[in-house]
Amino acid sequence: MDNEPMRIDILTVMPEILESPLGFSILKRAQDKGLAEIVVHNLRDYSTRPHRKVDDYPFGGEAGMVMQIEPIDRAISSLKEQRHYDEVIFMTPDGEQLTQQVANSLSLCRNIIILCGHYKGVDYRVREHLITREITIGDYVLTGGELPAAILTDAIVRLIPGAIGDEQSALSDSFQDNLLAPPVYTRPAVYNGWEVPEVLLSGHQARIDEWKHDMAVERTMRLRPDLLNDI
Amino acid sequence: MDNEPMRIDILTVMPEILESPLGFSILKRAQDKGLAEIVVHNLRDYSTRPHRKVDDYPFGGEAGMVMQIEPIDRAISSLKEQRHYDEVIFMTPDGEQLTQQVANSLSLCRNIIILCGHYKGVDYRVREHLITREITIGDYVLTGGELPAAILTDAIVRLIPGAIGDEQSALSDSFQDNLLAPPVYTRPAVYNGWEVPEVLLSGHQARIDEWKHDMAVERTMRLRPDLLNDI
Repeated sequence: MDNEPMRIDILTVMPEILESPLGFSILKRAQDKGLAEIVVHNLRDYSTRPHRKVDDYPFGGEAGMVMQIEPIDRAISSLKEQRHYDEVIFMTPDGEQLTQQVANSLSLCRNIIILCGHYKGVDYRVREHLITREITIGDYVLTGGELPAAILTDAIVRLIPGAIGDEQSALSDSFQDNLLAPPVYTRPAVYNGWEVPEVLLSGHQARIDEWKHDMAVERTMRLRPDLLNDI
Repeated sequence: MDNEPMRIDILTVMPEILESPLGFSILKRAQDKGLAEIVVHNLRDYSTRPHRKVDDYPFGGEAGMVMQIEPIDRAISSLKEQRHYDEVIFMTPDGEQLTQQVANSLSLCRNIIILCGHYKGVDYRVREHLITREITIGDYVLTGGELPAAILTDAIVRLIPGAIGDEQSALSDSFQDNLLAPPVYTRPAVYNGWEVPEVLLSGHQARIDEWKHDMAVERTMRLRPDLLNDI
């Protein structure tokens, strides 16, 4: 039972947008390895209205369309009948800010549902009664919740042990230890007159490690001193 | 000349990831309307090495692969020979934080290049000599810069006049005026015993507008008091 893959169900009116972000790179590999199961659901499949409509005009008169509660409730209820979900997450600009700590904690869940907003928003009763957690990826306005759902899924799934290969692992240097990563360089040693720092070519591993640590601290103090206060 | 579309060139080793985010919804519509031109370039097309390789081991000995400067320089130089670029942006977790204000200012550019990092990172000389601006979408680690590039593109392109239709416009309520959006509701007025606030059904537009404003202020004070300090 403990080896069952983490399951992420994504509810959306625009499933097409998610095809390639979920179909390549680490998200594909994690699914191929049986570490994660990511299922995208078209909310229109849960509509009972003509033309599979899932939105309607807002009460109180205003431009725009609002996603209705009924198809969302039917989709969530149907999933909950099949298994327990740790969280039902709504991607929204006024939610809790996604951080590495939030991603770390969500990566320990067994099953989660992610609801993507679109159009003017979702009927607020969805947020009051069906959602357990609201998350934003940042303070900027986007077309819909689909790309944020892909971002959240990527941030979570790459933390599942075995999901990332060696070539990726050091990406986690930034934020996981509250220091920005030091600069990296590769061949050629000189390009267009621009040289790689000499120490990296010296072969003295202790000096190289010291340089890397110094650069990580220097860059963090210069660019993100706030990270050091969090320690 | 002034009616030429904004052009965004995205450089990546994983062009497949970007297919569906750029091919649907507002990004597709903006391109179809001639408001924006978004071109994805595979950095491997600029490699001169066997098997179109674009990465190599880092100097100083460490796990992981680093994206080489040469294919990136060749791609950027080739684009710059064809037109002027306002910014050459690198998506990186230690960059400047994307905000609505950053998106607003970038939407006034005519042409931009966005470089997506992948693997362990890019040769630091790229960042020192070829990049004009480094941007992050938030403090969390992701597999690569492709989804952040899609997020940035979405945030920028939807601001181009004519890009979004009426049904989307109110999404900009949050952040554009430093207030969170008020709750929205649609049919049915009662669902599962949960009622829509009575004032929204009253037909008194002045009372409705007052309620919406009060709710926007109340939600902002409760959830994001920091936004009020920015005014």
